[in-house]
Amino acid sequence: MPVARFNQASSFHQIKAYSQTLKGKHLSEMFAGDPKRGQALSVRTPHLFLDYSRQRVDLKTMQMLEKLADERKLGSRIKAMTTGQKINETEDRAVLHLALRDPEGKLVIPAQIEDAVVRAEAGEVKEVLSHIESFSKEIISGKRTGKNGKPIKNIVAVGIGGSYLGPEYLANSLRPFAQDGMNLRFVANVDGADFVEKTQDLDLEETLVIIVSKTFTTAETMKNATTAKEWIKTAIDRHFVAVSTAAEKVDAFGINTENMFGFWNWVGGRYSASSAVGILPLALYLGFDNAKKILDGAHWMDKHFVESPFMSNIPILSAMLDIWNINFMGFKTRALLPYSQGVGRLPAHTQQVEMESNGKRVLMDGTPVDFDTGEVVFGEPGTNGQHSFYQLIHQGTQIIPCDFIGFINPQYPLGKATAKEVTHHQELMTNFLAQADALAFGKKSDNPHKHFPGNRPSSSLLLKQLDPFTAGLLLAWTEHRAAVKGFIWGINSFDQYGVELGKILGADHRGRMLQFNDTGVINVDGLNPSTAALLTAFLKGGLPK
Amino acid sequence: MPVARFNQASSFHQIKAYSQTLKGKHLSEMFAGDPKRGQALSVRTPHLFLDYSRQRVDLKTMQMLEKLADERKLGSRIKAMTTGQKINETEDRAVLHLALRDPEGKLVIPAQIEDAVVRAEAGEVKEVLSHIESFSKEIISGKRTGKNGKPIKNIVAVGIGGSYLGPEYLANSLRPFAQDGMNLRFVANVDGADFVEKTQDLDLEETLVIIVSKTFTTAETMKNATTAKEWIKTAIDRHFVAVSTAAEKVDAFGINTENMFGFWNWVGGRYSASSAVGILPLALYLGFDNAKKILDGAHWMDKHFVESPFMSNIPILSAMLDIWNINFMGFKTRALLPYSQGVGRLPAHTQQVEMESNGKRVLMDGTPVDFDTGEVVFGEPGTNGQHSFYQLIHQGTQIIPCDFIGFINPQYPLGKATAKEVTHHQELMTNFLAQADALAFGKKSDNPHKHFPGNRPSSSLLLKQLDPFTAGLLLAWTEHRAAVKGFIWGINSFDQYGVELGKILGADHRGRMLQFNDTGVINVDGLNPSTAALLTAFLKGGLPK
Repeated sequence: MPVARFNQASSFHQIKAYSQTLKGKHLSEMFAGDPKRGQALSVRTPHLFLDYSRQRVDLKTMQMLEKLADERKLGSRIKAMTTGQKINETEDRAVLHLALRDPEGKLVIPAQIEDAVVRAEAGEVKEVLSHIESFSKEIISGKRTGKNGKPIKNIVAVGIGGSYLGPEYLANSLRPFAQDGMNLRFVANVDGADFVEKTQDLDLEETLVIIVSKTFTTAETMKNATTAKEWIKTAIDRHFVAVSTAAEKVDAFGINTENMFGFWNWVGGRYSASSAVGILPLALYLGFDNAKKILDGAHWMDKHFVESPFMSNIPILSAMLDIWNINFMGFKTRALLPYSQGVGRLPAHTQQVEMESNGKRVLMDGTPVDFDTGEVVFGEPGTNGQHSFYQLIHQGTQIIPCDFIGFINPQYPLGKATAKEVTHHQELMTNFLAQADALAFGKKSDNPHKHFPGNRPSSSLLLKQLDPFTAGLLLAWTEHRAAVKGFIWGINSFDQYGVELGKILGADHRGRMLQFNDTGVINVDGLNPSTAALLTAFLKGGLPK
Repeated sequence: MPVARFNQASSFHQIKAYSQTLKGKHLSEMFAGDPKRGQALSVRTPHLFLDYSRQRVDLKTMQMLEKLADERKLGSRIKAMTTGQKINETEDRAVLHLALRDPEGKLVIPAQIEDAVVRAEAGEVKEVLSHIESFSKEIISGKRTGKNGKPIKNIVAVGIGGSYLGPEYLANSLRPFAQDGMNLRFVANVDGADFVEKTQDLDLEETLVIIVSKTFTTAETMKNATTAKEWIKTAIDRHFVAVSTAAEKVDAFGINTENMFGFWNWVGGRYSASSAVGILPLALYLGFDNAKKILDGAHWMDKHFVESPFMSNIPILSAMLDIWNINFMGFKTRALLPYSQGVGRLPAHTQQVEMESNGKRVLMDGTPVDFDTGEVVFGEPGTNGQHSFYQLIHQGTQIIPCDFIGFINPQYPLGKATAKEVTHHQELMTNFLAQADALAFGKKSDNPHKHFPGNRPSSSLLLKQLDPFTAGLLLAWTEHRAAVKGFIWGINSFDQYGVELGKILGADHRGRMLQFNDTGVINVDGLNPSTAALLTAFLKGGLPK
């Protein structure tokens, strides 16, 4: 069905006009005029609470955004995703990461999947999960050991990008749930420092290496994998497993495909944390039951996303508020600020999910966009960020919409709650509460250096505690938020052609380096003089003079 | 001397007009028309090489930017800094972090400092350094031990913001230089997870805690300090030292002021990494000689900065290119992309230095700016970022100027250089070389999804290797780059009033929490309904229903 462009939709023009009115309004004014605002612009669910009353919107805005979503056929696009239609059109693939946390097929119903191959593959989710379950139990119980019968105590997960950032966010978030004595390390960067520093204190006989690569050709990962094999040397079968879709390449590398955990081409890299990519290392680190709870949390969010009406649908509202900020208010950079040390790497994962999914310049049909697409996302955990970049958020010339994430209960109760002392977590949460109001309402001062203009938008997300269920739920929130924006804009959030050119030019340089290694000749043919100078300096081993 | 506003300078208008011409020019065109471009738009020094030929400038732009810098009296502003004038006018303070790496007073010449107090304090730099030297040698040699005579093996540095990010960047960069068996951990966040996870595996008898706080009142740091004291319990004198300017408060906390390492109010938090704030923990971790080399590297950059003419002054050129991108091209977000795992936290430190220094809305005289000030900075180490957010940099609708940082030699030589294999470092550097060209020149394709428009600006910084000297040099480069922008814009890069309001509102919530701890009453008087609901949920321990 042909749909008008995003910025030709009739509701787009209405919102554009209305946004002019709201641009002149201050959040102080909006709050003062409407005591019910906090109640109206918030969503209550059993597992998380979203308050977006400090966004520069009103109920009318939200109704108009709902109309825009309707006009953009958001509902049918989500339906197309959950029924396995090939909505990743440029790669002719379905997008079915929701099936990964739905082994019983309750939300992604196999019978609704038209393509027979995809349908069959969706049925394999359960199988892979049960392989992860038995394998992780064998390792944790010590039934399956490393060479010389030593129990496995260290998991080294080798992978980059989508094979790294989501699992790392989850692992960092869930450290208190780790199995006694089990370590999980991630090796992503091809810089040898990453491999050496993550492995040098490990007993290789107690170490299991997981090579994670969808295609098993990712240059960085295969380089690290080869180095890992040289480190482990013998009994490769006991010390190496693979997570991949490429059985032949896994076999050629020397890993027994019995020790391969599959996924499918309808799982995009950055959407793969809930496949074996994340769940295998996490099941080994946290135990299978905890890993399963991550999937349960993600599934809870999936169901909320697929079934909730617009006004109470948290990922949809988050996405539409982003669109409001980007396309109507002109705020193109967003800060993600978890008041939790554990969630500290969610910003890096979100960077990947958002900026790789929606950093696009053409519509699905290939015509260039003439409106802004994906925003830049950055963040550090609160309160650390407050002592760093918040100055700019409060008093800079750019408006940076913020997402605050807070938890009612701490992971580690520390400090005393008395009449004279607050706990660490209470101290943390004073900041979570204070910052949103400071940004929204500002403070007048006769000293212009101390004047805070306010009217800086934010949303606050409150959860009960950081545990496997909520960590999974936040993962799915992040994924759906990005996907919804892509649906609304009409771009493909599931391909990533923008990374290809770098790979091609990288391969060209690799060829020159191999030639140099072989012959000592520095070949700069066809390079521009700047690149020639840089390559020459590098290979000669001295700075340009 | 009264100076016209930045955007009223006559060269500002000339550049503005000229930028319109360059906006229509593609980097491919600029390179094709000028084979000497790489040579002309680069700077050679013995320790680092800057190639900015992929910025969307030409020689004429640079000449105009030089004129702008002259018109803005950049030279005399730098001179005012190095002679200890109170250029942090809003706080009536000198800005003398250059003196910290200049104990002999070669660049910051004591006789040139007018204020007698500041002059005397600058003389104390040497004293504090020699205290650090003797103290670190006593600890490392085992002459000074923890309780029960155990040698100190663990340093826990408790501090946040400026007392954390710079030292952390340096420590991460210099892991291969660590003393055998010495650990350094940073506890910054008030979230109890940070304290617990950084200390739970440490033997407290082998641990030295450094409390780092300029005022010794920073809420997060004092909360963590108190918890640390409860953990260590006895022999506080053997296990606690302080880095602070507030001797009385250090004493009141229970730390012997003999174990206090001072600095001075002319060292701003985010500019304090080369004071005892960074140098004490780093001397303990790396040995004093390595810590001294960090200072030497920073001093080398200081001298380069103070003495080099515009066209060969790397921090000034970096800053002026930022201004070109922000104020003339409209690119307000910058990516910092070190091709080095060790330098991976320089983006977080740079975020602090840039966004806290230059996220300002008024000029020094208090009048509001009517132009853009400080940019947003973000980044992750390459190649990790390539598999994450680079998609948006290559094909998104926002132009994000990039700084690539690369090293000729690796910290850890790993892998073989043969005709068939590249080393890890060669593989890493193929990417450093490839990405800048991919961004600049793009690639035509009939498939619009695979089309790369190019013309995306970047600078490449090449260094010999990551060692204490170069880590220090990059630190100073970061500091001067931010300061120059502040000088040109006419804002105060050395205060941070934008963090105050959050502290005031935080204190208000702390009062409510203490009241709750004492009486069980949830006091929401004076809060807006949204904040009242969030606070109530938190204190009641359940999500709003």
